[in-house]
Amino acid sequence: MADILQQLAATLEARKQADPGSSYVAQLHHKGLNKILEKVGEEATETLLAAKDAAISGKPDEVIAETADLWFHSLVMLSHLNISHQDVLNELARRMGLSGLEEKASRSAQ
Amino acid sequence: MADILQQLAATLEARKQADPGSSYVAQLHHKGLNKILEKVGEEATETLLAAKDAAISGKPDEVIAETADLWFHSLVMLSHLNISHQDVLNELARRMGLSGLEEKASRSAQ
Amino acid sequence: MADILQQLAATLEARKQADPGSSYVAQLHHKGLNKILEKVGEEATETLLAAKDAAISGKPDEVIAETADLWFHSLVMLSHLNISHQDVLNELARRMGLSGLEEKASRSAQ
Amino acid sequence: MADILQQLAATLEARKQADPGSSYVAQLHHKGLNKILEKVGEEATETLLAAKDAAISGKPDEVIAETADLWFHSLVMLSHLNISHQDVLNELARRMGLSGLEEKASRSAQ
Repeated sequence: MADILQQLAATLEARKQADPGSSYVAQLHHKGLNKILEKVGEEATETLLAAKDAAISGKPDEVIAETADLWFHSLVMLSHLNISHQDVLNELARRMGLSGLEEKASRSAQ
Repeated sequence: MADILQQLAATLEARKQADPGSSYVAQLHHKGLNKILEKVGEEATETLLAAKDAAISGKPDEVIAETADLWFHSLVMLSHLNISHQDVLNELARRMGLSGLEEKASRSAQ
Repeated sequence: MADILQQLAATLEARKQADPGSSYVAQLHHKGLNKILEKVGEEATETLLAAKDAAISGKPDEVIAETADLWFHSLVMLSHLNISHQDVLNELARRMGLSGLEEKASRSAQ
Repeated sequence: MADILQQLAATLEARKQADPGSSYVAQLHHKGLNKILEKVGEEATETLLAAKDAAISGKPDEVIAETADLWFHSLVMLSHLNISHQDVLNELARRMGLSGLEEKASRSAQ
């Protein structure tokens, strides 16, 4: 299975150097870390509100959209700080005792 | 390449039904949505603070650990609301114009 | 000494019924609770970032402005939910063991 | 009318120098700015969740308690940064066109 997160991270990395006039991602980098972190905080808040509403309505669309926004802006943050998203995934794998699974998956994906 | 996020989501789903006395994830589900969302908000805050510190120190470890916590608890949130993390990834792919890649991935995963 | 918070709460209450076209406060109420809570979350994030910057620069202006925004929007939230800011102050007084001081102050202010 | 906020700020300032073993406020200052800001972020999140619940239940108690926590920890933050809460109130007064009242208050407080 393809790794959308990796494709996304590569795309974000490429857009980092783009013209701020034509790329939202380049614009965020141009405005700097505080603007990027404001967006992370904003999307976290919107995710919470969407989750509260979804628990009542049963409709998942807003939660999906806001969580996508949250992950997106946290990936831009990592890129801005020159940290690979793979380091975060490795940390998650390590905590969940997935390192064996990860290794096995790495082999089978080659 | 391995899809750690998918492995993690599957593990989280399995632990959803575990004994709250032995599993942190089961405990979160048992305490309910507000507790899970408090953790998402808490980890978002800690991610921002770690990012501000990393911008000065140049040390990435805290940002990696806190972003892992943020993603982890947002995955628990999705699981609690019976929303697949794949829906969030598909939304990200759609927005970034990665839909071709996504479609291909969907086919190869069947 | 005058109680600015009380004046502010009274002003916010009056503007609650104003024309959304001419009053920012009326506009927030018109847009509803989620919009108000998004602002509370947003201003909390901006307060944290300003505090981190102030700890280095020594300049207090941004922290003052962002904390004002945070308190302002939390007062709008209370107003939206028909909760008096005085109930929050009373809770603070109760916790800090200020009830004696509060009572004494009330008497001397009469 | 009494100014609970002023009493609270004075109490917080006094406890800043207290023994961290016996005072929660002194303990927060001892742990440092990040710990204080984590609490501000945490209480902002809990305020949002309480507000969402109150909008359905009609019960104000949780919102009052969480807003009190939010204001309390933002006052500790101001104190940690050696910023007076009065500067925040003056900024609020200025924005709301309460400057006349503020000026009068400043004079009577001298």
